[in-house]
Amino acid sequence: MNIDHYMQQLGERAKAASRIIASAESGQKNAALLQMATALDEGRASLIAANLKDIEKGRGKNLSAPMLDRLLLDDPAIDKMISSLQQVASLPDPVGGISDMRYLDTGIQLGKMRVPLGVIGIIYESRPNVTVEAASLCLKSGNATILRGGSEAIHSNRAIATCIATGLECTGLPADTVQVVETVDREAVAKMITMSDYVDVIIPRGGKGLIERISRDAKVAVIKHLDGICHVYIDDEADIEKAIAIAVNAKPRRYGVCNAMETLLLHKDIVDAVLPQLCRIYTEKEVELRGCEKCVDKLPQAIKATEVDWSTEYLAAVLSIKVVDDMHSAIEHINHYSSAHTDAIVTENYSKSRMFLRQVDSSSVMVNASTAFADGFEYGLGAEIGISTDKLHVRGPVGLEGLTSQKYVVLGDGQIRQ
Amino acid sequence: MNIDHYMQQLGERAKAASRIIASAESGQKNAALLQMATALDEGRASLIAANLKDIEKGRGKNLSAPMLDRLLLDDPAIDKMISSLQQVASLPDPVGGISDMRYLDTGIQLGKMRVPLGVIGIIYESRPNVTVEAASLCLKSGNATILRGGSEAIHSNRAIATCIATGLECTGLPADTVQVVETVDREAVAKMITMSDYVDVIIPRGGKGLIERISRDAKVAVIKHLDGICHVYIDDEADIEKAIAIAVNAKPRRYGVCNAMETLLLHKDIVDAVLPQLCRIYTEKEVELRGCEKCVDKLPQAIKATEVDWSTEYLAAVLSIKVVDDMHSAIEHINHYSSAHTDAIVTENYSKSRMFLRQVDSSSVMVNASTAFADGFEYGLGAEIGISTDKLHVRGPVGLEGLTSQKYVVLGDGQIRQ
Repeated sequence: MNIDHYMQQLGERAKAASRIIASAESGQKNAALLQMATALDEGRASLIAANLKDIEKGRGKNLSAPMLDRLLLDDPAIDKMISSLQQVASLPDPVGGISDMRYLDTGIQLGKMRVPLGVIGIIYESRPNVTVEAASLCLKSGNATILRGGSEAIHSNRAIATCIATGLECTGLPADTVQVVETVDREAVAKMITMSDYVDVIIPRGGKGLIERISRDAKVAVIKHLDGICHVYIDDEADIEKAIAIAVNAKPRRYGVCNAMETLLLHKDIVDAVLPQLCRIYTEKEVELRGCEKCVDKLPQAIKATEVDWSTEYLAAVLSIKVVDDMHSAIEHINHYSSAHTDAIVTENYSKSRMFLRQVDSSSVMVNASTAFADGFEYGLGAEIGISTDKLHVRGPVGLEGLTSQKYVVLGDGQIRQ
Repeated sequence: MNIDHYMQQLGERAKAASRIIASAESGQKNAALLQMATALDEGRASLIAANLKDIEKGRGKNLSAPMLDRLLLDDPAIDKMISSLQQVASLPDPVGGISDMRYLDTGIQLGKMRVPLGVIGIIYESRPNVTVEAASLCLKSGNATILRGGSEAIHSNRAIATCIATGLECTGLPADTVQVVETVDREAVAKMITMSDYVDVIIPRGGKGLIERISRDAKVAVIKHLDGICHVYIDDEADIEKAIAIAVNAKPRRYGVCNAMETLLLHKDIVDAVLPQLCRIYTEKEVELRGCEKCVDKLPQAIKATEVDWSTEYLAAVLSIKVVDDMHSAIEHINHYSSAHTDAIVTENYSKSRMFLRQVDSSSVMVNASTAFADGFEYGLGAEIGISTDKLHVRGPVGLEGLTSQKYVVLGDGQIRQ
């Protein structure tokens, strides 16, 4: 197979389909989503059979147990995909929504209409459920999609794609609205991220390495989700009880999530009131602690943190702790080391809360709340395709609206410009 | 001079300044803008002297008369820069504005705060007034700027930069908030568009060649303004008088602007009612007409249009005309050949107007209004740094808001996630 030619064809078909799906009615898009759910339900046997091939190949390749776990498509996993389709169908359709409509001095009426982006390329690693999640969010927001899943999941993804195509076709939408790249050739990705004539935006989902590689080589706009080096700063005027609850919720609740706290910043005057208690809980939960000099003085069990620790996303039961002189030092540390994902302050002081909100440059900035809230579902977006750590277009959890843009609409009665 | 090192230094300084300007109060930013105006007013003699050097060098290099004209900095040009600074000072400050603030089920309060992008690199060609316009819009929106003007205007730009620095310094803002690249070495641009550690977004202003080159090579996000191939479609149910007024306003009003109509689409049933009249006016104004076959049959003075004509931005007294069978053919033509800048329909039919608004994929879509309205001032943005033909981040005229992003802010009372 000539990969360039193959990808070009996918691109052309996606572009053509994108024009149709862009102005499809909500009802039709929702019907397609529900038909996909039915097709998945009715296709359980073939989905599980296809998945078995991937699992067997994975075992042969000695994939790790967590990798195999993420790859597995059993009945509960299929149920989850079905309910996620139903949920996306129930969300309000952002496309066509008009905002800020008003009459201008010239008598023309000006507003902004929400429109799809066009063709979205999704590049992801092993989990086959992403195929359904990404396809459904892109479809609902009026976009065509080209999906490139991990090679480990190729049989599962093909089987899912068949169900998706069934859903599209039996509601009269073009099957090309959602296309799965059918080859495991790595060149397919290289081509996809440079096909700016056909692809409007690339969303990579996966490890930092994948995302950095794609961002570096792409000739198409990328909505990226890099690391989550999140901070909680406990101020000297914090409510101790809230502070401890938040610092515990933000870390040992779950380790492998991007909104987990990686560094705890403590005001020097609150260290004694907070650290022993917190430390007891962390030790119970077997969290490894790495502290600054002042912190290590107080906590013999903590290892001395190095410069690398402040800029590491552990995604594990490891936490770095730093004692700071005041809020300004905390903000400085955050703006320097944070990955601009989510950072929180715990304080009862009004002026400090205002200043922290204003000065911390992250996609989510919080006062007296756990960083664990930084999530599309918690934010009421209904679903999430990722969390953008970019500044342009969309920051933070990306839902349906993040997959759209706005065009100006002008209504006149024959007005001309003087 | 080592260009890499020099640009790196500009980048570091800009990044440091961006943190300060990001949370500067509106009053201070406005005071700086007004002080810049005063500095320009008091520095007229040195501005004009510096400009003279550029003009003389330009003459020596045989720059064209329009180029020299754009380069000229005389008293009226300085007056214009002063009033543009005063106008930007009078605009509302977008930074810090919070929208969609609401309580969620968990009791946390969620909203979006408008924040600056950080460091904006502006790359532009000869006109020195862009230095003031770009600097003022970026400053007002809380961003630091690195300005790279054309080499023809280097002395003028340096003199303007001195006035800008005076304005910043005497209001206590860092002079590094606005920096002008002091070298004409082309490598400076190559470095600037790849310094993703220091520059958050690049805005090129200039010819299509410049913008394409920058978009191709940039490793930083680009807000770009490519061509304006704008269409007016006159439907068979158009009000003839409005149609003629709009078709005349959209073309011979001004030729060199991106919102000028380049192709007129005529419904086949309205050709006889519209074309002779329109043609008389165009001929009077010496507009060269290039028509499709059907059009040429009716208009012996029209040249036969080629495929190239449909995708050319003339920016001149040339207009291509095509007769179409119905609105669908018009929309198809537009979505194929338009540069997605601005396209208009003239019709009294309600359903067609709705369909046109929905299906035409351009940054401004108009009903019964001249494409000439597609402009930041006309849209009430107060000022404009360009017109984005991109889909991501911002589409259409870009004002202060387009130079900002939004971050999530979360206010809680100690909430943790279950």
